[in-house]
Amino acid sequence: MTKSLWITAARDSSGAAIDIEIAGGRIAAILPTGGKIADEKPHLDAAGRLVLPALVEAHCHFDKTLWGQPWRPNSAGPTLRDYIDNERRILRGLDVPIAARAGKLIEHCIARGSLHFRCHVDVDPEFGVSHVEAMLALRETYRDIITMEFVAFPQTGMLIRPGTLAVMEAALKLGVEHVGGLDPCGIDNDPVRHLEAIFDLAGKYGRGIDIHLHDKGELGLWQIERIADFTEARGMAGRVVISHAYCLGEARPARLERIARALADNGIGIMTTAPADGPAPPVADLRAAGVTVCMGSDGIRDAWSPLGTGDMLERALFLCLRFDWARDEDLAAAFDCVSAAGARILGLRNYGLAVGAPANLLVLPAENVGDAIARRPQERTVISHGVVIARDGRFLS
Amino acid sequence: MTKSLWITAARDSSGAAIDIEIAGGRIAAILPTGGKIADEKPHLDAAGRLVLPALVEAHCHFDKTLWGQPWRPNSAGPTLRDYIDNERRILRGLDVPIAARAGKLIEHCIARGSLHFRCHVDVDPEFGVSHVEAMLALRETYRDIITMEFVAFPQTGMLIRPGTLAVMEAALKLGVEHVGGLDPCGIDNDPVRHLEAIFDLAGKYGRGIDIHLHDKGELGLWQIERIADFTEARGMAGRVVISHAYCLGEARPARLERIARALADNGIGIMTTAPADGPAPPVADLRAAGVTVCMGSDGIRDAWSPLGTGDMLERALFLCLRFDWARDEDLAAAFDCVSAAGARILGLRNYGLAVGAPANLLVLPAENVGDAIARRPQERTVISHGVVIARDGRFLS
Repeated sequence: MTKSLWITAARDSSGAAIDIEIAGGRIAAILPTGGKIADEKPHLDAAGRLVLPALVEAHCHFDKTLWGQPWRPNSAGPTLRDYIDNERRILRGLDVPIAARAGKLIEHCIARGSLHFRCHVDVDPEFGVSHVEAMLALRETYRDIITMEFVAFPQTGMLIRPGTLAVMEAALKLGVEHVGGLDPCGIDNDPVRHLEAIFDLAGKYGRGIDIHLHDKGELGLWQIERIADFTEARGMAGRVVISHAYCLGEARPARLERIARALADNGIGIMTTAPADGPAPPVADLRAAGVTVCMGSDGIRDAWSPLGTGDMLERALFLCLRFDWARDEDLAAAFDCVSAAGARILGLRNYGLAVGAPANLLVLPAENVGDAIARRPQERTVISHGVVIARDGRFLS
Repeated sequence: MTKSLWITAARDSSGAAIDIEIAGGRIAAILPTGGKIADEKPHLDAAGRLVLPALVEAHCHFDKTLWGQPWRPNSAGPTLRDYIDNERRILRGLDVPIAARAGKLIEHCIARGSLHFRCHVDVDPEFGVSHVEAMLALRETYRDIITMEFVAFPQTGMLIRPGTLAVMEAALKLGVEHVGGLDPCGIDNDPVRHLEAIFDLAGKYGRGIDIHLHDKGELGLWQIERIADFTEARGMAGRVVISHAYCLGEARPARLERIARALADNGIGIMTTAPADGPAPPVADLRAAGVTVCMGSDGIRDAWSPLGTGDMLERALFLCLRFDWARDEDLAAAFDCVSAAGARILGLRNYGLAVGAPANLLVLPAENVGDAIARRPQERTVISHGVVIARDGRFLS
């Protein structure tokens, strides 16, 4: 693979017609269309299509997807606990390995334009680090074209499942980048010991933290304040993410303002799926307060729900619909949540459509970012380090 | 066009492998795949793809779409009134005729699988029935392949805009099927006179009624009760639809139960877009109470918002996301809202995948209805009265 390429007659998000020179997998130059370009490199004629930085999927659970498997009716009971138990039953009975299911889904997500992933991987005393090992192997398979970081995620509970912490520690030793948490109150029923445990682990191994927080209302808000306290006390600013954090959508303005300030001061990121079925973090307010908000698909075709496609432009649409965003600056903010803001959360250096950055790009037939979100054309060309790896929405194997 | 066709090796929503014989534009037989079929008719090998009845778009505003036009940043102020005024300014300045804009959008919607439409058409003392005339002409253009019914819609207000009622009456005389209403309290500020006026008009011309009701909370609920009263008093059962009716999502259970009974008793349909940004009619509760709930796209790429694609499978997805539906029976209910329930609201006779019904069908590569909603494949073949009118998601002109 040459990793050198000219993309000609593209349009950037400002509408400017540009040619992009890629050399050694990086963007070497961005020039107005129409200038003289070297002939010896391969050319990709964008023919006026929009070129965007590759999308960022900041919260997914690839290890438990059923992608590519025959349809499986959802069979879970109504509570979070029911869903967790139901999933365990289903995954136990599955004989298709993670590599097959997650691999298919990763290629699908790549073809939709995502090249950067934060993936929560289940750890559990029952199956130990087997999911982690499978995902680490899969990461190797795709290491040349995507970045993927992991969170050791105690899906079935942590303190209430003796042995889980030891498995999480084993996962960190294998190279997992982040310590996961899960409803310190609602699932583990011992919030302070829960936070002590994950912040201890993160401190010991120099890793980040990403906490699933589904708890609603005052219970959720109180935990966010405690997470901010811990982040400050342990010197973890900029390394903590709270995923979901539905409760932020229930805070009254003055309370939200205080909490948003604590989040911003401690560099705590918020990940939202922009859920339509209940409260969601007020993204505009959080962004205005300086909080970095990223987006993720969460489950994609799994035991929790058959829904989800991993298309981060669709996820950005969900954000727009959730908050009735229609103005260009709102659509741009939604795109930021699935691109640059996600890249900041993932700590990606040199992300974006800029000279010197790795040439990780999405080319698609849309007028601008708003149009891309509104129509989400499927005919996407995806370029990783200067190499075309998906064309017309299909992964090139 | 022959209007005779065999569709072979299709799968219906129950998973059964079927061959469908179409003769004279109607479904003549549905047989298990593998039997002997006549050779003289053209064949369409569905190759295991799913066949569904054509989708029903029960609420759209094609006359004011900007579909196919260059991107126009949304410029409206924050209130409903601002949006209305903003749209007037934009439409006044537009020199592309309705036929061009709406025509492009209709063909796009057809290619997504919709063949039945209820379209609200603006009437106004300023431009009179010109939108109605343009849409009537467009209906003629597509009369062989789709059904489209109209609502005379007083977008800028009715009683508060003297002369509007006369234009609405003129629209009915031109053949518009339904009398529109708009927030009898919130916009017109005189609910009883508003309802008297539209029920009078509907009674005089023997037409239906479809009322946009955005008013929230108690104000909205009170109006729904009054609409039910009017429907009963005027003998209009089965001919009245309330569109949006967000307030139903704010009613406490006992209140909701009483109102749902009144809606069911009077055959009043509810149309929802399944909005993610606020209260929405509780579709499961309403359906359980016997209320027919249909869905619509509302605006598609217009002065209100650049969002919207007219894909009714996407709309069904929004419903699932709005209420966290994931079980097969929920996904089937969502599909019902964009198909059979919509057909009942539109009064379509003989709708569906059944012998004797017009062969209006959607064929797409999905395992079942849930999969179709979850993944919404774009490669759709659409058949109207036995004729293939869209293939691979593209309208065949």
